[in-house]
Amino acid sequence: MEERPAIFLISDRTGITIEKLVHTLLTQFDNATTDAHFRAFQDTPEKISKLVDEIDTFAEREGVAPLVFSSVVDESLRKQLKTAKTEIVDIFDIFLPNLSTALHKPMNQNVGKAHGMGTESEYERRVEAVNYALSYDDGARIKGLDKADLILMGVSRSGKTPTCLYLAMQYKVLAANYPLTEDDFMEGRLPEPLKPFKEKLFGLSITPERLHQIREERRPGSKYASIDQCRREITAAESLYRQQGIQFVDSTAVSIEELAIAVMQQIGMKRGV
Amino acid sequence: MEERPAIFLISDRTGITIEKLVHTLLTQFDNATTDAHFRAFQDTPEKISKLVDEIDTFAEREGVAPLVFSSVVDESLRKQLKTAKTEIVDIFDIFLPNLSTALHKPMNQNVGKAHGMGTESEYERRVEAVNYALSYDDGARIKGLDKADLILMGVSRSGKTPTCLYLAMQYKVLAANYPLTEDDFMEGRLPEPLKPFKEKLFGLSITPERLHQIREERRPGSKYASIDQCRREITAAESLYRQQGIQFVDSTAVSIEELAIAVMQQIGMKRGV
Repeated sequence: MEERPAIFLISDRTGITIEKLVHTLLTQFDNATTDAHFRAFQDTPEKISKLVDEIDTFAEREGVAPLVFSSVVDESLRKQLKTAKTEIVDIFDIFLPNLSTALHKPMNQNVGKAHGMGTESEYERRVEAVNYALSYDDGARIKGLDKADLILMGVSRSGKTPTCLYLAMQYKVLAANYPLTEDDFMEGRLPEPLKPFKEKLFGLSITPERLHQIREERRPGSKYASIDQCRREITAAESLYRQQGIQFVDSTAVSIEELAIAVMQQIGMKRGV
Repeated sequence: MEERPAIFLISDRTGITIEKLVHTLLTQFDNATTDAHFRAFQDTPEKISKLVDEIDTFAEREGVAPLVFSSVVDESLRKQLKTAKTEIVDIFDIFLPNLSTALHKPMNQNVGKAHGMGTESEYERRVEAVNYALSYDDGARIKGLDKADLILMGVSRSGKTPTCLYLAMQYKVLAANYPLTEDDFMEGRLPEPLKPFKEKLFGLSITPERLHQIREERRPGSKYASIDQCRREITAAESLYRQQGIQFVDSTAVSIEELAIAVMQQIGMKRGV
């Protein structure tokens, strides 16, 4: 039987940071399945006290102490958590001394800023970006494209929508998308509404085989999903990109995150922390 | 003048993990503005060599060495990166020994798994979840609600759409949302289409002042945006939640991440790593 080591992920807020961190670390072990216990919003002595009991009981019952990752900020809560009879990997203990030296600043204890609201205007820009992506999905609107930071183009089902939504959600990018259709290929030039925005265009491609597979799920047996049609559209799209000097990436073996970051990097958009 | 310490964030893939980590760490310093340099997809000796040059040149020019965070996986690329004349905070160096002990496993070097594709079926479930959220946005469809993991309800502009999209994108949750309208409040009971799914319902609330502000931006001076209307709708929505025993949260001072995690936690959805 596969052993599934227990990991507790403890945060005073969402726990998203340690979630990503532990996820990344675990990818470095083959077949590492874990029994993950998330405990978010652990921000009072009462909650931490219950949690310490839970961890100790767990360790006693299972005969092995769980590994605990913590991103709890408050000094006294961190001390309290460390009374649990197991190893606590505290990301602030680990990284703050480094960073404090580099920043020439003492640390404060700002609970809730990590994945908190940020400023109100940040929240609004984010919601605005999501709404923009939804309004300008699939070429739905043309007017207002001048506001876009980026216009993703590609054939139907090449991954435009999730990429735009991810860029909006995570990076507040105003990302529109525009579907390339048979008509556009007949013309053999840039679709009229896109002409003024050439520097914002970015293309998606995909292998015909994968596109065929995705479209088959949606409309089985259709001309739209046929391998011939997929092949024709992809060839036409890529030749359009090349002819117009539009950068493009192949989305076939790439995650939404990778696509989003690759696009941002290639068009020189700055990420901040 | 405010000093802006330089930080390099280096990854062989997207750099999202160290982006979140550094972001969280920086929240613990007041007014810490940094000059962040992201270098994603650094996965060849040639790229790392250029990067080492860039870091050294930067340090010489600025008179101070930048702080470097790295999530590069490959052992020889990591060694090469460490020839730069500055401190490299290597998250694998820091965490893997701990984790290796806990997992009773040696580490491997699986570049690109961290925010890579995962399995194809994971990718598909994610895109499916995003499409579901888009199709079932704002009560657009009723048929198929039985497939939802979760149905978010709330008045117009209370934050339903971004929360559903976030849950879909990050956690592959099938999240529908349903807008509560005047008609629903007149009835004083659960909207008919939602009755079969009581255990999947979750409510959003918001302060009338904030709702008023948000709606004013959309339709200035309208009845819809008036503080009286907002107050009436919120009061009615909360009394419906209470009467029906539906859990709800106030989205006013909460980020999309916090909302999403709070909802998942309260309805007992499991997160994995």
